Amino acid sequence: MTEIQEDFAAKLDRLAEIAVRIGVNVQAGQELIVNAPVEAVELIRGVARHAYRAGAKAVSVNFGDQVLSRIAVDEGRDEIFDYAPGWRFDGVERALKEGAAVLNVLGADPNLMAGADSGRIARGQKAHAIAARGIQALTGGFAVSWSIVPFAHQAWARAVFPDLDSDTAVRALWDAIFAATRTDGEDAVGNWKDHAARLHERTEILNGKRYEALHFRGPGTDLKVGLIEGHEWAGGAVNTTAGVRCLPNIPTEEVFCMPHRDRVEGFVRATKPLSYAGALIESISVKFEGGRIVNASASSGEEVFKNLIATDEGASRLGEVALVPHASPISKSGLLFYNTLFDENAASHIAVGRALGINAPGGALEKAVGANDSLVHVDWMIGSGEMDVDGVLSGGEVEAVMREGAFV
Amino acid sequence: MTEIQEDFAAKLDRLAEIAVRIGVNVQAGQELIVNAPVEAVELIRGVARHAYRAGAKAVSVNFGDQVLSRIAVDEGRDEIFDYAPGWRFDGVERALKEGAAVLNVLGADPNLMAGADSGRIARGQKAHAIAARGIQALTGGFAVSWSIVPFAHQAWARAVFPDLDSDTAVRALWDAIFAATRTDGEDAVGNWKDHAARLHERTEILNGKRYEALHFRGPGTDLKVGLIEGHEWAGGAVNTTAGVRCLPNIPTEEVFCMPHRDRVEGFVRATKPLSYAGALIESISVKFEGGRIVNASASSGEEVFKNLIATDEGASRLGEVALVPHASPISKSGLLFYNTLFDENAASHIAVGRALGINAPGGALEKAVGANDSLVHVDWMIGSGEMDVDGVLSGGEVEAVMREGAFV
Repeated sequence: MTEIQEDFAAKLDRLAEIAVRIGVNVQAGQELIVNAPVEAVELIRGVARHAYRAGAKAVSVNFGDQVLSRIAVDEGRDEIFDYAPGWRFDGVERALKEGAAVLNVLGADPNLMAGADSGRIARGQKAHAIAARGIQALTGGFAVSWSIVPFAHQAWARAVFPDLDSDTAVRALWDAIFAATRTDGEDAVGNWKDHAARLHERTEILNGKRYEALHFRGPGTDLKVGLIEGHEWAGGAVNTTAGVRCLPNIPTEEVFCMPHRDRVEGFVRATKPLSYAGALIESISVKFEGGRIVNASASSGEEVFKNLIATDEGASRLGEVALVPHASPISKSGLLFYNTLFDENAASHIAVGRALGINAPGGALEKAVGANDSLVHVDWMIGSGEMDVDGVLSGGEVEAVMREGAFV
Repeated sequence: MTEIQEDFAAKLDRLAEIAVRIGVNVQAGQELIVNAPVEAVELIRGVARHAYRAGAKAVSVNFGDQVLSRIAVDEGRDEIFDYAPGWRFDGVERALKEGAAVLNVLGADPNLMAGADSGRIARGQKAHAIAARGIQALTGGFAVSWSIVPFAHQAWARAVFPDLDSDTAVRALWDAIFAATRTDGEDAVGNWKDHAARLHERTEILNGKRYEALHFRGPGTDLKVGLIEGHEWAGGAVNTTAGVRCLPNIPTEEVFCMPHRDRVEGFVRATKPLSYAGALIESISVKFEGGRIVNASASSGEEVFKNLIATDEGASRLGEVALVPHASPISKSGLLFYNTLFDENAASHIAVGRALGINAPGGALEKAVGANDSLVHVDWMIGSGEMDVDGVLSGGEVEAVMREGAFV
């Protein structure tokens, strides 16, 4: 191995270690389920090593090839797109109920579905979301520990660095990933503990405020997002219902809260493209009335976006609002990742669709008046260095939360 | 693409087509489950294209990484090897009951487990075999259509061609695979139909004989294998219980029958190494009494072989006996494949363990007096150019079936 290869192997191993020890926090005797692209096999071997050393009972990997989804859309008969293999989803659901933890390894090709039939894609997404509801309830409610970590897939790297040749692009994306996931330095575990503590502190401050709403103002944006009563700001690490501390997103820079499904008013313009379902949705601009999107446009991918918010009633309402400083390390990289795990941690954002139990009082969605429900949950970025955010207090008073993208 | 690349792509596509149309014979509206190594992704994309064109409802691929099994054996705690993820096996079993077909893509590293703890491997194999019993019953009874096709995995290629560099070895193994799977010429589908007809003709002749036993004689071998009453010789294509014609092994050159579990006497020496559970077992030599192996040795991998035949009571008795002409195309290649799918089709062989329903009168194992049962079914090669086989008729008369490895 050359010095460069050794350095890379060391960082990849640290990412695997962080995924196992900080992300999922695998417990002795626990099974770990991993969902990962086939190309990530080297990273997954590292994950398996660390998981077995942590005492895992089994590491069960569902390797996937995203090209197979494209082949289905292009070659499949029209009647197949409302089908999802229930046996697969139900199997994973059973494993989770038996105590397994889940690690999702993300490295999607943002252009996977370029030019493909968006109606088929939307139907397929919906069928899979329906089949995944049971899993979703378990992970969303943190009945199990889970985490998401990135992998520098070649097709993703080419989208982020279109001017570089393939190999150089992959190396550049890995460098960006190692920096963003705090695995480029020696003490990655220590760094993550410090970072999680800082995020926790920020949620404590915001929880003390009891804002009734957040007011976003910036170019193309004047949006009031009402927060549910008894809301809980969250960010960084989370305790599962069994008391295991996991860290669901690696990287993560956000603190997030629950909007009231009926109390969102105004208009908002996206500040970054949204990569969703293998398509790129650019310059999203929407208008809310009574919490619902009543008008939506995009300069590209508009049909994909309109299909998304038409998935069900809740898909046109908000399930999350999140604050991210414009000076976050990912934002400072200056890169556009075409990947929500990164881009949502470079800018304040909102999500249409399902609300998150962790933001509800006592963690139970049914108790939360105003919690949104949907098959989908899709974040898109609205923050920038030109965004001001005010907090509206219960008496109607207003105070500055962010100015020009920075926390006040 | 260069001409060589185009030629390779065309052959790989033909192998995918044969797997879908001849092997599994995917029906319109049917789900196809594929088990394959992650490295086989390009072949699998071809399989998916052909399956969707044949009208498949879904192509669900379980990609696997064999190195993960090695990592488990090396790094896992000792108590984990009796566990198998039941949720995975039960999920596939449900899919089969719902009508799915199965394609297994084989490309194992024969040296995967070299030097590893053979006790852990044996326990893991047994736990997985127990979890797979339901699947086994459905595929073994041809309640579903299924097939096995090969893939030139790099680690396998290096074992077959130890003197070649890695890339050249992979190309050489692909050439051997394309030749053996009859996909090197244009009309692969037609070739397979002809070949299946020839194998069927051979089973018809043997079924007309009603032999009570086969008598194998060669260097180190003098073995009488009693056949069950009402036995059915099989080979090539098979009708599922739903009447779909599939071809379970690609390549295949064998015709095979069911030994009586108590009526095997004498001694036999293997003519090729057996690659099993990531280990190489060489120069197997065993003695049978009353159908049971009473003495076994091997020049290497002896412990692995002894663990295998100790899996359960039926693991030390025979479940299959098969005749393959020494002049089969695979045998004539002169290569040792360290892979049973190939090596068993280069030589007459026997299998310890579970008998095959297809060899029983009416296809029902419980009706067959003398059918063996076991968690395992492992073939090993005993044929060669020096092997004579006699058929023992009901009156005790003897006639020549094979002389010097060729059918009489």
